[in-house]
Amino acid sequence: MCVQGCMEAVRATAARAGLSRRGFFGRAGAAAAGFAAMAVEPTVVAAAPRSFERVVDLTHTLTPAFPGFFGAPLIELERRADFRKDGYNMQDWRLTEHAGTHLDAPIHFAETGASVEDIPADTLVVPLAVIDVAEKADADADYLLSRDDLVAWESRHGRLPAGCCVAMHSGWGRLATEDPARFVGRDVDGTLHFPGIAPEAATWLLKERDVIGLAVDTLSLDHGPSSDFKTHAIWLPAGRWGLENVANLDKVPAAGATLVVGLPKVKDATGAPVRLLALI
Amino acid sequence: MCVQGCMEAVRATAARAGLSRRGFFGRAGAAAAGFAAMAVEPTVVAAAPRSFERVVDLTHTLTPAFPGFFGAPLIELERRADFRKDGYNMQDWRLTEHAGTHLDAPIHFAETGASVEDIPADTLVVPLAVIDVAEKADADADYLLSRDDLVAWESRHGRLPAGCCVAMHSGWGRLATEDPARFVGRDVDGTLHFPGIAPEAATWLLKERDVIGLAVDTLSLDHGPSSDFKTHAIWLPAGRWGLENVANLDKVPAAGATLVVGLPKVKDATGAPVRLLALI
Repeated sequence: MCVQGCMEAVRATAARAGLSRRGFFGRAGAAAAGFAAMAVEPTVVAAAPRSFERVVDLTHTLTPAFPGFFGAPLIELERRADFRKDGYNMQDWRLTEHAGTHLDAPIHFAETGASVEDIPADTLVVPLAVIDVAEKADADADYLLSRDDLVAWESRHGRLPAGCCVAMHSGWGRLATEDPARFVGRDVDGTLHFPGIAPEAATWLLKERDVIGLAVDTLSLDHGPSSDFKTHAIWLPAGRWGLENVANLDKVPAAGATLVVGLPKVKDATGAPVRLLALI
Repeated sequence: MCVQGCMEAVRATAARAGLSRRGFFGRAGAAAAGFAAMAVEPTVVAAAPRSFERVVDLTHTLTPAFPGFFGAPLIELERRADFRKDGYNMQDWRLTEHAGTHLDAPIHFAETGASVEDIPADTLVVPLAVIDVAEKADADADYLLSRDDLVAWESRHGRLPAGCCVAMHSGWGRLATEDPARFVGRDVDGTLHFPGIAPEAATWLLKERDVIGLAVDTLSLDHGPSSDFKTHAIWLPAGRWGLENVANLDKVPAAGATLVVGLPKVKDATGAPVRLLALI
């Protein structure tokens, strides 16, 4: 939001933002080539101003007990210095890159492609579009966010903004800490059950819209029963990123927030735990 | 910056921001008690709007070769899944919390105090004040940013904004990758040489100003020769955070930027590698 009297100007600027955002994100024509083809500059060219008043934390606290795909614990801390003995506290971590609220880089699902440090900083500060499928997911734990869900969002909020992140709000976010067993949804046969994003929806976004990231409040971009991880395989090798285990998506508006992806800049990483902050 | 026609309104709002910022950061009266006393809520109350047009990355790429206090390497990656064999890439990290561009939490230098996950999200999005001491540091590798340097900044840019981060730009940032030996500055006796922040300056900021974070483009808040780490010992136990090994401080204005500290939310961590983004 903006101070009184400038909202009209911001809206007018935003209406022209299709082209300028493309410039801002430096991705005109670059999407197909992926991040690796882009210049990594600390400063980017000016774009439509964005304004905010408050911050919402979209990050779960990462603990050894946080649920994961790959068996717990996904992080272990080992004390290396103790204040009483050494005058300061310090620890080492042993960490699986894809633990807690984290980012998947293109290289996670490709033989070659951008790793974490290749993702330009300006593509980590993006418009956030939240697609609410909580009612449908409540009726079907394996729900797949569909192209129809995206079209319904656009009918209310206008075309998905250039360079945005599309986030699925399934209602699963609170289960990560309140009911981890249901969050993972493992049945007697070992199959997982939680919502995800349909491969067809990901393909449509790639072809028809200018979207840099997908985000889910569940363990995976693909829904629980998936064995071929088709949404991952479509999305990441196209030079896009994904966010998993996102928190508090019920605390942000469907449109208008800016997402900041606080991605530690670790060379050759295929993903990393992140701090996600929504600026509203 | 803002669209034409709203800068006056923003300035007028900013002029009133002393009080509202205090409200925004939720720290009126809370500073002495430290972060641990604050409620950790995903959403905070509204404040003066802030606006930006571009993003500058203040983060060094973290590699096993990145210089550190505690002997290299401070991070090691171990492959856990390979795309050609497993259909995806994934690694484990072994990491020292205080590696690369990183945050020191209050508990780093106290027996009790806020660890990483206790630091509220809204105190990770703050005004950035950059104090340029590069000329003095070029003449004296052990230079200590002084209270006079802070007063000189205020004489040009006005009072340090409430809830801000004060960053020392010493010119050392580029040395981290261009000349790591000079960045560390180890002499024949084993003493290190790089600039830092004077304990007296830190004390003055604690007592006389409302500052949430200190940042340096060197290895430590304390300068290289320090053996008592007095600036750490003054600053962190007072419920404040520190940032070390900050990059690109020559690419941001002395006043007016907003700093986003992308701090992974790891429970019980005494610090963590961060993504630092300046919104300008």
